[in-house]
Order: sequence, then C-alpha cells, then structure tokens
Amino acid sequence: MNTLYNRDLISIDDLTKDEIESILVQAAEFEQRLARGERHSVAQLLRDYLLATIFYEPSTRTRLSFESAMNRLGGRVLSVAEAKTSSSAAKGETIYDTGRMLESYADVLVQRHPASGSARALADAAAVPVINAGDGTGEHPSQALLDLYTIQREGAAGSPGASRGGLRPLDGLHVAMVGDLKNGRTVHSLSRALSHWKVEFSFVAPPELAMPQDIVDFVRERGATVNQATDMVPAFKTADVAYITRIQQERFATPEDYMKYKGVYVITAQVLKDAKPGIAIMHPLPRVDEISTDVDTLANAAYFRQARNGVFIRMALLAMILGAV
Amino acid sequence: MNTLYNRDLISIDDLTKDEIESILVQAAEFEQRLARGERHSVAQLLRDYLLATIFYEPSTRTRLSFESAMNRLGGRVLSVAEAKTSSSAAKGETIYDTGRMLESYADVLVQRHPASGSARALADAAAVPVINAGDGTGEHPSQALLDLYTIQREGAAGSPGASRGGLRPLDGLHVAMVGDLKNGRTVHSLSRALSHWKVEFSFVAPPELAMPQDIVDFVRERGATVNQATDMVPAFKTADVAYITRIQQERFATPEDYMKYKGVYVITAQVLKDAKPGIAIMHPLPRVDEISTDVDTLANAAYFRQARNGVFIRMALLAMILGAV
Amino acid sequence: MNTLYNRDLISIDDLTKDEIESILVQAAEFEQRLARGERHSVAQLLRDYLLATIFYEPSTRTRLSFESAMNRLGGRVLSVAEAKTSSSAAKGETIYDTGRMLESYADVLVQRHPASGSARALADAAAVPVINAGDGTGEHPSQALLDLYTIQREGAAGSPGASRGGLRPLDGLHVAMVGDLKNGRTVHSLSRALSHWKVEFSFVAPPELAMPQDIVDFVRERGATVNQATDMVPAFKTADVAYITRIQQERFATPEDYMKYKGVYVITAQVLKDAKPGIAIMHPLPRVDEISTDVDTLANAAYFRQARNGVFIRMALLAMILGAV
Repeated sequence: MNTLYNRDLISIDDLTKDEIESILVQAAEFEQRLARGERHSVAQLLRDYLLATIFYEPSTRTRLSFESAMNRLGGRVLSVAEAKTSSSAAKGETIYDTGRMLESYADVLVQRHPASGSARALADAAAVPVINAGDGTGEHPSQALLDLYTIQREGAAGSPGASRGGLRPLDGLHVAMVGDLKNGRTVHSLSRALSHWKVEFSFVAPPELAMPQDIVDFVRERGATVNQATDMVPAFKTADVAYITRIQQERFATPEDYMKYKGVYVITAQVLKDAKPGIAIMHPLPRVDEISTDVDTLANAAYFRQARNGVFIRMALLAMILGAV
Repeated sequence: MNTLYNRDLISIDDLTKDEIESILVQAAEFEQRLARGERHSVAQLLRDYLLATIFYEPSTRTRLSFESAMNRLGGRVLSVAEAKTSSSAAKGETIYDTGRMLESYADVLVQRHPASGSARALADAAAVPVINAGDGTGEHPSQALLDLYTIQREGAAGSPGASRGGLRPLDGLHVAMVGDLKNGRTVHSLSRALSHWKVEFSFVAPPELAMPQDIVDFVRERGATVNQATDMVPAFKTADVAYITRIQQERFATPEDYMKYKGVYVITAQVLKDAKPGIAIMHPLPRVDEISTDVDTLANAAYFRQARNGVFIRMALLAMILGAV
Repeated sequence: MNTLYNRDLISIDDLTKDEIESILVQAAEFEQRLARGERHSVAQLLRDYLLATIFYEPSTRTRLSFESAMNRLGGRVLSVAEAKTSSSAAKGETIYDTGRMLESYADVLVQRHPASGSARALADAAAVPVINAGDGTGEHPSQALLDLYTIQREGAAGSPGASRGGLRPLDGLHVAMVGDLKNGRTVHSLSRALSHWKVEFSFVAPPELAMPQDIVDFVRERGATVNQATDMVPAFKTADVAYITRIQQERFATPEDYMKYKGVYVITAQVLKDAKPGIAIMHPLPRVDEISTDVDTLANAAYFRQARNGVFIRMALLAMILGAV
C-alpha cells in the first residue's frame, strides 16, 4: 500500500520528497489513462466511496476540481458550497463537532476555511482522512502539488505546448516567482516543495511584498540558489518558469507605491519577447489583469493547463489516500 | 453520428428543422424507454461523463431538469447553483477564464447568466460543448424544444390527457400565445421554432406588450398565418394550444393600463368553457396567478407535463451532444 | 413488499409499532452489511434512482445524512441547499407547483421547510413519496427513528461503547429527557414513538419549559410511567438514557429565570459521576454548551454515534419507500 493511505494532507511539508514524486507519477498515470480513453476503468477505482467537500469561503475552482477528480474516479460527492451560511456552523457548531459528524457521512473530507489551523482541527476530530483545500493564510497543499506537476509537464521536450507527452526533471530548473511574494500562500508552499530539488529561484517583488526571510533561509538551507530582484525582465532571460501572482493595492502603504509597481508586473506578449524560449507562464488563477489576454494564445501560456492538472493531482491524492492504487 | 455531436446550443436558430425533429424523436424515445422500465439501460449511456451546471441567477427548475436528465443517463453533475456569490466570478474572473477552467472539469457545460451574449462567450472560450440555459433577454433553446415537444405530445390522439402515447404533426396547428409577448423570451424562441412548420399564430397581448414586429415578420416570411388581438377568448375557439405567459405590472406605463388587462388574461375553467375541446394549456412556469388553480385538474392542463417533458428533451440534447446516441 | 413502499413519511405517527420495528431492523441490517465491507452490493439497491433534497432552511447535518444514505445505496441526488433564495420559491411559486415540478425530476423527495404543514402540502401535490425532514415546530420523523435506533444500539450488552454489535429491547427502559421540553420537537416525537413500548420517562425541565401536558397524557394513556422534575441528577441515577436538548435564553420571561437553570442543565463528567453506569448520553446536535467537551471521551457519550445512526435509518427509509428491500 502507498504511504499516503488513510493519511491527512494538511501541509505540503507533511510529504517527503519520495511521496511527492509518487503523487506526481500517479497524476501522470491518470492523465495518460484518460488520454487513452480509459474513462470507464478509471471510474471503477473509487466507485463506492464518498467525498464531502466543505467550503466556508467560495472557491469554485478548487471545489469543482476536487469534485471532478472524485467523479472521474467513479466516487460520489456530498457538497457544502456555502458552509458559512447554510451549515450547522451558522448555529455555532465547532469544527470538532462538525468533524465528528462528517466522518459518518463520507470517506474523505476536503475543507476550505478562512481560519489558519482549521484543517488540522478538522483532521484531529474526524476519523476519516482530511485534505486541506486552503485554511486562511496557511496551507493549500494540492495547489503546490499541481504547480510542481505543471512545472514538470511543461517544456518536457524543450518545446512548450507540445510538451504534454512526458515529464521533465525538476533538478536544474530556474523558477522565477513574481508579484506579491509576501502574502501569497501558493508561492510559499511551492518554494518549500521545490527546494527538495536542486533549483534556482528568482524572487521578483516590490520591497514591501518580498518573499519572507524564513522561506528564503529555508530553501537556501536545502541547497537552492536564491536571487532577489524588483525587475522581472532580467530574471525571465534564464528562467524556465515564470510563476505570476496577483498584486493588490491594499497591500501598499501609499497609492504612489502601488502605482510604481502596478504596471511593472503585468505580463504581456511584449514583456516576454526577450524571455527564455519556452518559459512556462504559470498563475494559480483567477487572474485579474496581471497577465494580459494577448499571452493566452502563446504556446507557453501554461496557466489553463495548470488548472487542468489540478484534476489529475487530486485524482492521485484521492486514490492514494483511499487506498485504491 | 448525429449532427449535434460536440456542438454548442446557444440559440434555437442554431438548429435546422431536421435537427429539431431529430431531437424531438430522441426525446420521445427516452420517454418511452423510461415508461417501459428501462432505467438501467438508459443509465449506461453517459455513465462516465460529467456535466457542470453554472447558474448565475436562480432557476431551480431549469437546473434540476438538466441535472435530472444527466443522472437519468447515468452521468454525473458538478453543480454551481449560486455562481454569482460563490464562484471565482466574485473575484472578478471573466467568462473566458471561467470557460477555460470548466473545460477541464466537465465534458459539457450548462450555463444560466443574466447577460445577453454570455452563453456565446462561454462557448467561444471552452473546448467542450455549451448549452445555453438562458442568457438575459436572449435565448433559452431547450425551453423552446420542450415547448415544441409538448405541443406534439398533447392532443396527439385528439384526446387531451390521454395523449401521452404518440406525437401529432405540427403542420396545421393553431397556436395562441397570450400575455407579455414583448418581453417574454420563451414566446420569441418558440414562435421562430414553430415557423419551420405550417402553423397559424394568434398573438394575444395588450398593445403595450405586443409581439415585436421583427418576430411577426420573420414567421410570416416563413409562411405562418398571424392574427393579432387583445382578447384571448375568440382565439381559443379554434386554437389547438394556448401558451400563457406572465404579465407584470411594471411593464405598463400607468396602473390604469395594467388594471385594464390584469383580469383579462387570467385563465380559469370558466374562460375555457368555449375554447376548442382539447386545447392544450401551456405555461413555462413558474406561474403566479395567470392560470387559476381550478384549471389544474382539467385534462388539457398541460403545464406540469410540459415541465416533465423538459427532462426528456434535455436527455436528448445531452446524449446527442456527447455522442451517446 | 414492505408496507412503507411508495408512502410518504410526514409524521412519526404515520407509522405503526410494527413498521417502526421493521425500519429499525432494516437499519441494523445496513449497518452490519457496511461493517462487513459490503459497500458494493449495498450500492446496487437504488442505483438508478434519484432523490431530490429541498432545504428552505439550513441543515447541513440532515441534508448530508440523507444524501450520504442515498449515495451509499447507489442512488443519485439532486440538491437544493438554499431553496429560499435560489429556487422558484423566490419567484412566488407555491409548494403545490413545486411538488408538481419535482415529481418529474426525482423518485423521492426530502424537504426541510420552516412552515408547519408544508411537508403534507408537498406530499399532497407530488406523485412521488415525500419524507419530511422538518417542518417548523412540526415533525421530523427520521430524527425520532434514529433516536430510537440509538437507544436500542447503546448499552445492548450492558456495556456502553462496546455496544455496537446488537440491539437491546426497548421495553423496560428508563429514558430521561432534559432541557427545553416545551419547544423541542425532537423530544415530542421521540416520546410519542417510545410510548409504543413499556417505558419510564423522566421529563426534566424548568417549569417554563416543561413537557406539554398533551404529550404527557398521550404517553401515559399508552401505558408509560412519567416522572416530572426540575433536577436531572436524581433521574440519572436510574435512567438508561439521558436525552439532552438545548435551552435558549429567549425562552425565559426574565434573565434571572434563565440564569437559574442555565448551569443546572450542563452535562459534565462530574454530573455523570453518580449516574447509572452505562447511561447513554444523547443529543440531536448541534450542541452549543449543554454538553461539556469532557464528556466526549466517555464510553457512553452516544451523540456522535447517534448522528452516524441517522445514515443507517435514512438508508432503511429510502430503500423501503422505493421498494428496494
């Protein structure tokens, strides 16, 4: 049995490098099986199992991605899309009591909650495995995994767009992260996860929104090379991946500070002209205007494939945690 | 393969007369198979397929009708019942980006959205087929199809209520439409669709709410006979179908205008006394008070059967678009 | 065929003692089959059937419990979690019209609605069976059934916690009910249901919130012994079951009255020190603070098992009503 069987997944740090690799391999296998038309045999794997998705804040993308994954595996879904208003939480129920309830209704739980630590609280209560789908400023481990998978899948054969047939090694890659690196939980988890491999980071952000020092220290200690900058264009010249995040005005002390960086971190086809050929443009989505729509048609615009990869990663997690593979 | 395979359905005008007929025939086949107790074999047709329903405004009837249809075919459903508040749209995501996301999660999409043109926008973005379940003042093609199906099914053997065993030809029918013909999108689509056949229309409405001239011209050009009136009773004397729509006070310039027509367009058993025997009373539902509950028990009260027919029509659409028949 | 086939379940009083017993036996059989790992064969029973859950007020516990039950039986679910805002009811549709719509979409309906009598109204309209999941101050029969089942399951072999292997007879039991007995619909239904057997009741409540006299009379007439008290500790000395309900400040005439009883009806490990060994602590959940969390780890804390039992009871109801057993 795989080592994820019957386990919770609260933080990307819960996983060893070997376990991460086994998830990525399993996701690739599911992607390939579906591409080969094996819908029906894949849909036997979890056919008598139930997932409950409990979302205390809206996230259609994450919820539907998990629910799509469960259904592709033949499982069923109980869905609480608006837990804040419609659930017993409105009557004052604790996460502990909710967990003791849900463990009787489903075989695995996926929770999105605004409070940091709430996923661990649910997992401590429930007798069934819990996957954290985001808890406040905390963790969202399946996002980090789908980001890793996307980095592997893009440019596998050196040719973006045509890359969907294989996996490239993560060792030796140069990953630029751009935008609000201080508050973005996805870049924190992804950085820690990527540091299992020999990678080079370029952290590109305004000084106010720089990558926290503890993350920088952590990945350096694991052997990563770290560059820090405020200009993304030089970093893109050698980066294999450009990971873009949203920048929000309210994060800046003054409107002037915001205006200074606003235009600088908008990815356009023009900005990418001098970037390394095949650089994979990634974004956790939804985007607002940090990637221009003229990028959408470029072969190396990876962000919609990235969203799609979330289904394969979540299939792998559900199947491994429930012991179906 | 049927010609609907892998196609979007945005407007009833996307369909040729032949295609409409093939959908009606397929719906009848599903109705008959379910009536014969063939639940299980019908439930094999789409068993490994996923539908996503995305509703930006409430429409329990339409959403559940599609979801019932998908489940009857053995397919699975991802449901976003409150897209406005709970989805990424709340974070400012465009329909294009939503479409690129959803194409990875499901095999076919059904969208209800308040903005005219939004269904086309989703279809242009998504690589999977899109069915428009209403977009503002625009189109709602599955409603027009279920209306056509109901007109065919009612009175097939000349005897209302006992009519559920066959289909009657549409050529030669006289269809009266009553109420707010100016703003009702269902009567616009249905009129255009019916004009594929040799039909007679009686458009019965207050002058303020008359059928738009472009629709009148369109159906006349296709060969239909058109009568226009403000009184419904004479029209009912020869009509095979009375299609009722709601009239809303706010559509009138003055309260006096409203009061003048308010009582006139309420269908009661008394009103129907001199109507053609077997006249099928239809309504897209929900009704408020434009059909009296004393009509509900009449054999020719067709509006609840009409709602039921929506399931068969949507089964036909989903099965044909996904290539299962 | 069982006598529940194709029937509505609106009130616990709709059921004879024999029918209640057959439901409890069926629930036990489903619990045992699932415990023996027979997920897959159980999931064949309702595999081509649809349940629609229509909730006009939030109740995640009840909704998910029914949906889990339907899925465990292999059935499918159409879900309206927020009927008030998202359904046609927002457009003014009557329950009658809603019922005539839903009968075409699903094979069985489960409704939660704030208005007393609304379940009966839905059942009168719809051609398919309706299960009342709570209608105002009225009935919630599946709750009474799961309470009965829990009372049977707990302490079966005289040893709480280890009790999950059998059923104990209900005759001869002493059941204490504590808290707001005036307004709590669950204790009303449960009392009436229990009075089919030879039981002793201790109704423990502040005078303002005492069990209504008509319930007391009803169960006495059926042969039950009834004690009434304001102090729970003496009752617990001989009670086999302590059924706790919430007490709300707004039910009291003055804050002083509330404060007088507030602390008295909080169950703690200390309070239970002199209780009968193995006394089963039950609560319909969600709790707020009427049971201290230090009770959660006691072997006789039955309330989370009680929630779990709701799934088996609802499986029994759905399977029997749809004729699958």
